[in-house]
Amino acid sequence: MEDGEEREWGAKAWTYLSSVRSLSPLIQCITNFVSMDLTANTLLSAGASPAMLHSPNESPDFTPQVNALYINVGTLSDNWLPAMELATQLASKLNKPWVLDPVAAGASRFRLKACLDLISLKPTVIRGNASEIIALAKASFPSTKGVDSSHDSTDAVEAAKSLANSSGAVVAVSGAVDFVTDGNRIVGARNGVPMMQKITATGCAVTALIAAFVATDPSHAMEATASALAVFGVAGELGMETARGPASLRTHLIDSLHGLDQTAVISGVKITAI
Amino acid sequence: MEDGEEREWGAKAWTYLSSVRSLSPLIQCITNFVSMDLTANTLLSAGASPAMLHSPNESPDFTPQVNALYINVGTLSDNWLPAMELATQLASKLNKPWVLDPVAAGASRFRLKACLDLISLKPTVIRGNASEIIALAKASFPSTKGVDSSHDSTDAVEAAKSLANSSGAVVAVSGAVDFVTDGNRIVGARNGVPMMQKITATGCAVTALIAAFVATDPSHAMEATASALAVFGVAGELGMETARGPASLRTHLIDSLHGLDQTAVISGVKITAI
Amino acid sequence: MEDGEEREWGAKAWTYLSSVRSLSPLIQCITNFVSMDLTANTLLSAGASPAMLHSPNESPDFTPQVNALYINVGTLSDNWLPAMELATQLASKLNKPWVLDPVAAGASRFRLKACLDLISLKPTVIRGNASEIIALAKASFPSTKGVDSSHDSTDAVEAAKSLANSSGAVVAVSGAVDFVTDGNRIVGARNGVPMMQKITATGCAVTALIAAFVATDPSHAMEATASALAVFGVAGELGMETARGPASLRTHLIDSLHGLDQTAVISGVKITAI
Repeated sequence: MEDGEEREWGAKAWTYLSSVRSLSPLIQCITNFVSMDLTANTLLSAGASPAMLHSPNESPDFTPQVNALYINVGTLSDNWLPAMELATQLASKLNKPWVLDPVAAGASRFRLKACLDLISLKPTVIRGNASEIIALAKASFPSTKGVDSSHDSTDAVEAAKSLANSSGAVVAVSGAVDFVTDGNRIVGARNGVPMMQKITATGCAVTALIAAFVATDPSHAMEATASALAVFGVAGELGMETARGPASLRTHLIDSLHGLDQTAVISGVKITAI
Repeated sequence: MEDGEEREWGAKAWTYLSSVRSLSPLIQCITNFVSMDLTANTLLSAGASPAMLHSPNESPDFTPQVNALYINVGTLSDNWLPAMELATQLASKLNKPWVLDPVAAGASRFRLKACLDLISLKPTVIRGNASEIIALAKASFPSTKGVDSSHDSTDAVEAAKSLANSSGAVVAVSGAVDFVTDGNRIVGARNGVPMMQKITATGCAVTALIAAFVATDPSHAMEATASALAVFGVAGELGMETARGPASLRTHLIDSLHGLDQTAVISGVKITAI
Repeated sequence: MEDGEEREWGAKAWTYLSSVRSLSPLIQCITNFVSMDLTANTLLSAGASPAMLHSPNESPDFTPQVNALYINVGTLSDNWLPAMELATQLASKLNKPWVLDPVAAGASRFRLKACLDLISLKPTVIRGNASEIIALAKASFPSTKGVDSSHDSTDAVEAAKSLANSSGAVVAVSGAVDFVTDGNRIVGARNGVPMMQKITATGCAVTALIAAFVATDPSHAMEATASALAVFGVAGELGMETARGPASLRTHLIDSLHGLDQTAVISGVKITAI
């Protein structure tokens, strides 16, 4: 039963990856300095077209040309926040999907408020770790330690449902199991390897990948999100086979993402309803 | 005939690479956030000395010390543009070569105008993909899709000649064949592998390498530019022999650039007059 | 004799690395754009928890949560300097260790003054190359070439002692031999391989590692600093065994740092009193 469900999800995930490869969606990324390299390389390896343009001088001309917008608050500062808000408003107005990575949402009052303000602009998807999603659902400072997750993803399921209901977004919580919810349904993706957390910006990169998947099918954001998480995880599992540490895993993960074939995706994806 | 010409260019390219290794030119890079890592590593592997200093507070003291200046507008914003303009003006005044990478020149009115303003400050070399060079030659918005090339480099040859004539710069158009023109002569470099386009910032990195090559011989910018493009392409070809995807190609390309010997360069470089 | 001393230092270095792995200190990094990726990955591979938060809007909430602060002036600009100064003041006030990397300290009057102002805020450790430490000790412009060292680290020993005495900081000078002094004692660490200088940001990364080591034992900053330098060097030596150039060395260095075991550290660390 579960096996049939996993195969169905595997086929769905393969369809999404194939669409990204054939459509090469243009993804505007306003993201943190640490993750720009890995994020761009993840999108390119998956077949998407990344564009790291953030200036408010440009978004009015550029955002109308993109297929999705990706916002990540990692190295937030007060001169980047208006750029994020303007692009987000443009995307919403133009009915383009946009995806939020609320890195370290609970690290400061300023950051928490920035994330909550961005969420009020109606993201299509929010992906964070357990601590980040709990911080957003609680909406009060203090609550979390830095950018790493100090909570388990299962702890965050209720927070995720609550955030999905209040925001209207699909909410994904990364962890040993990745959970995705629209506030009603929940699915779990059990791909990936623990060492991926020893590579900086893998969370940021998979959120960008979610934007690319969602760009190909904005009306099924939950399915696209779960598929992106699982596909990235499968690439990590394949990469781990020859990795000797976090840096070679990073290399092999990107290589694997580029080379993934139908068999690897369909047999590898482990998504089930919870 | 062509074979003899290629050998002659191979010898020239080897001379440039050897000069970079022995002189270790100091290259001031004011470039985008995505490409800083790969750009610095490309310059170091080639034997040059990169310096990522951009502040207008520093250029008056620092630009006089450098051998060439590299400007890249990838993650442009209105607070970086004056820094680019100041450094450019200093370089021009001091008769130091400077090289422009007009990333996504046609993506917005703001960016197009910024690129045209920079070009009015007389770059020694401009390198872009076909879409970027066409956008600059047309000088009107809209014209292009994001940062990737949607035009073939052959389409851009006339645009490149026109831009070279109007700007006084050597203009290079990257693609399956790289074209380099001073508005009069044209040479083509046929090195590199398609997968290099699946690595972010390879275009940015090779433009920085052009700056290093030109730094060693500013009065022959066309020859230095073609040589840099070909040498980077040869490194990519050697890297591809053991690559399993874009991330391992990136690693092997840099390793190969560092290790290139005379035989590999002379036998590998494929430059001919068009 | 020396062998016994080296073993003792090896055991000490292993204790520090083990503490970093078990305590996972949270390190706030306000660092340059070029080095953020390698710095974060170095800290993660060593077992620490990096957080690249720099905004003055956040430091009042965030700096109290961290175990150490790392400041690097690589891509300095006038809007980042107040962020560095605020976080530094907070760290000092809270008695948290903070570590300074004065990249290219002598490249401009602006940069030199910024570094000297930061030093007046009492860093726990300063690590630079010979040219940087000499520039800081001389405190006059001009004195150095770009970001690379044009002086040998032995030249800088007297400068380092002088800077340590005037600032109260432990001062480390990287080079073929790394020297560490508190103004009185001097130790030398002779680990690492020359090719590490062909990888951008290895200096930045090891300074961040120093912050992580010092975070576990702030009252023995000299021992922690020498240990971090040696451990990073041992990882480089192990990485070099299979490297084919600077890019694969970078990968293998990080993999090795993650995998270092007690035997490798104790037998590999080469620290002795001078």
